[in-house]
Amino acid sequence: MGSEVLKNKIEKMARDVKGAGMKMSLLSTKDKNAALRKIAKALLGRSDYLIKENKKDLKAAEKENYSKALVDRLVLNPKRIKGMADCLLDTLKIKDPVGEVLKTIKRPNGLIIEKVRTPIGVIGIIYESRPNVTSDCIGLCLKSGNAVILKGGKEAYYSNKAIFTVIQEALKETKVSVDAIAQISSTDREAIHHLLGLDQYVDLIVPRGGEGLIRFVAQNSSIPVVKHYKGVCHTYVSQKAKLDMAEAICMNAKIQRPGVCNAMETMLVHNSVANKFLPEVASALLEAGVEIRGCSKTKKILADAAKKAVEADWSEEYLDLILSVKVVDSVDEAIAHINTYGSKHSDAIVTEDKKEADKFLRCVDSATVYVNASTRFTDGYEFGFGAEVGISTDKLHARGPMALEELTTYKYLIRGKGQIRP
Amino acid sequence: MGSEVLKNKIEKMARDVKGAGMKMSLLSTKDKNAALRKIAKALLGRSDYLIKENKKDLKAAEKENYSKALVDRLVLNPKRIKGMADCLLDTLKIKDPVGEVLKTIKRPNGLIIEKVRTPIGVIGIIYESRPNVTSDCIGLCLKSGNAVILKGGKEAYYSNKAIFTVIQEALKETKVSVDAIAQISSTDREAIHHLLGLDQYVDLIVPRGGEGLIRFVAQNSSIPVVKHYKGVCHTYVSQKAKLDMAEAICMNAKIQRPGVCNAMETMLVHNSVANKFLPEVASALLEAGVEIRGCSKTKKILADAAKKAVEADWSEEYLDLILSVKVVDSVDEAIAHINTYGSKHSDAIVTEDKKEADKFLRCVDSATVYVNASTRFTDGYEFGFGAEVGISTDKLHARGPMALEELTTYKYLIRGKGQIRP
Repeated sequence: MGSEVLKNKIEKMARDVKGAGMKMSLLSTKDKNAALRKIAKALLGRSDYLIKENKKDLKAAEKENYSKALVDRLVLNPKRIKGMADCLLDTLKIKDPVGEVLKTIKRPNGLIIEKVRTPIGVIGIIYESRPNVTSDCIGLCLKSGNAVILKGGKEAYYSNKAIFTVIQEALKETKVSVDAIAQISSTDREAIHHLLGLDQYVDLIVPRGGEGLIRFVAQNSSIPVVKHYKGVCHTYVSQKAKLDMAEAICMNAKIQRPGVCNAMETMLVHNSVANKFLPEVASALLEAGVEIRGCSKTKKILADAAKKAVEADWSEEYLDLILSVKVVDSVDEAIAHINTYGSKHSDAIVTEDKKEADKFLRCVDSATVYVNASTRFTDGYEFGFGAEVGISTDKLHARGPMALEELTTYKYLIRGKGQIRP
Repeated sequence: MGSEVLKNKIEKMARDVKGAGMKMSLLSTKDKNAALRKIAKALLGRSDYLIKENKKDLKAAEKENYSKALVDRLVLNPKRIKGMADCLLDTLKIKDPVGEVLKTIKRPNGLIIEKVRTPIGVIGIIYESRPNVTSDCIGLCLKSGNAVILKGGKEAYYSNKAIFTVIQEALKETKVSVDAIAQISSTDREAIHHLLGLDQYVDLIVPRGGEGLIRFVAQNSSIPVVKHYKGVCHTYVSQKAKLDMAEAICMNAKIQRPGVCNAMETMLVHNSVANKFLPEVASALLEAGVEIRGCSKTKKILADAAKKAVEADWSEEYLDLILSVKVVDSVDEAIAHINTYGSKHSDAIVTEDKKEADKFLRCVDSATVYVNASTRFTDGYEFGFGAEVGISTDKLHARGPMALEELTTYKYLIRGKGQIRP
């Protein structure tokens, strides 16, 4: 498709979505829930079709010699399709955030000002690999009263298209306009460029994928972007920690699922407990197959059990059975390290000292800060928010799990009786 | 100054401010209020010096032949310096938003999750003309626990520098680090460019000024920007309106202070009341010196009392005694017009019909939507929020008056007893 033709096509699509989106704020919770239920049913009913289309992507992936991990993320099977339907039914159960009155102000002049949650408008979601993102994000956007434009990765071309088609069909029997959802199926990267320039129609872009994709989107978008960068998460073991609790928390944060953004990448240990704690935890880590990269003090204590960490290790998101370890002299040094090398995602302290814990909570500049718990809890479901479009590492609009509430904004509704400004 | 030297200087400044900013979240409300009181006192005490420095700017303005309106905005006199001090004392009285617990979640596994308001970090404010912005913004940022980098316009070079110096001196006797505030005094536009690239140190940019400045900032910033674009505000006079109330509201919204962003620029009138309402309101408008630019139906009713509006009129922010007028057939047409041509700022409906009012409130996609009141109330003080850094026309992070609360973000503080993820 010629670039100009593609551009016009995407612009028309966005304009239509915006038009349909304007009507979304008139839908009742009941209407939106009915639509989610209908979509869930349709996905289950069309499982065979979805699996058949998914096979085309898997065949192409084989040809392209994609990694086993990537192919695994692509697969659709009855269990995964049930997972997609379940995600919609979970979203259905979460309270509708739209219309919530956040604040009511009565002014001396009699004006009544209500600050009310509203949909954002049109949300563009740019993602890679996992086809379930298609239905998960449609569910979250519809429930929060937003229209949505989806741009999935080319590796899931047939799967995403099939899921979208089934959902589109299902919406025809609901009060949600079919135009409130759109999919850019072009695999041309230019398509993303065109979408990112449409700030008159699209209100928010959420990129989901690797760091490369997110940087590309952030740098090329005239539309606000909420970024979900990497998770370089820390656990600081204080001299006031219960060391058995610290070991359990660190092991969980590192090995329970090392390939995810809320797994621990760096462990910080207070100098005065390092001699006792490090050999114990190192032996458990090594047994679990974890490679340790330590600062010079760590190396001195662990000797050959640890490799030497280099500067780049402190800001690395391994997503693997690798852990960098640093010995620090104080909670202040731990906080400074985290704020310098971390990614504003999830960081924990293990300590029995309330004052120290409070300082850590206050000063660590991350979306979620833990005392005596594993960083692995940073997740929409674990917070009770339900499904999420991602974990924001930005500081504006949304921080941490970005679920239904974070897909809304607010406006002020002001009711008067003819008040004018003197 | 060479571009590389300037760049390094601004980068070092931003790094220092970030360092000082990290400690701001440890300050108590008392400490912050004491600092504001000290600053207010210092400004009043150094009035003569401020007025002397201001004279240099006024002299330069005369030489440059600046407009009378611009020169008026530049002037510092005892009354205006008292206004600056009062603004700080007002900000002092507003509740400290930092630390407010927005939500507490107790999870079945015993984790206690608190969503807590925190400072944003480092805020960059880029502004034009009025020197009082220097002290107003320092007050708002300090009270909300943020560090701040200021870049004022070259027309207020001496005034801004003097105000900043007085504040810096005053801070030395407080618990707020002097490094938490910084000023870029270079009048080189390159300086703004350098600032806008420092996303590792600066968390938010707020441009205050004309549309040109704001667009330049939005297009060149790698840091999130909350935009305060123009105010193309509407009042819709429904067929269900009390027409005397409608006239009072429209007159107030148009003429009480036409040069500000919350003044009405377009009046929409329902077809069935246009014949009665338009001649009445037109005669009052004309008497007040307002030029009317009408759609063809308006022209038919008002004849020579109105000029013919062209397409560009519907999206024009006149900031002057000019009003565009359009006759519409329904509340839906009014809503569609506002959402197409408006600027998401402030829009009003005059109606006695509750259902119609609710539809307008729900569907008009603006920061503040009024029923039976003048749009002129969109203002931090009128909302009871105190001073503001501006009125956001963006939809993310902050909408409408951007005061203390809007200068904060949140994080999740999670307290456990050793919980790990199963």
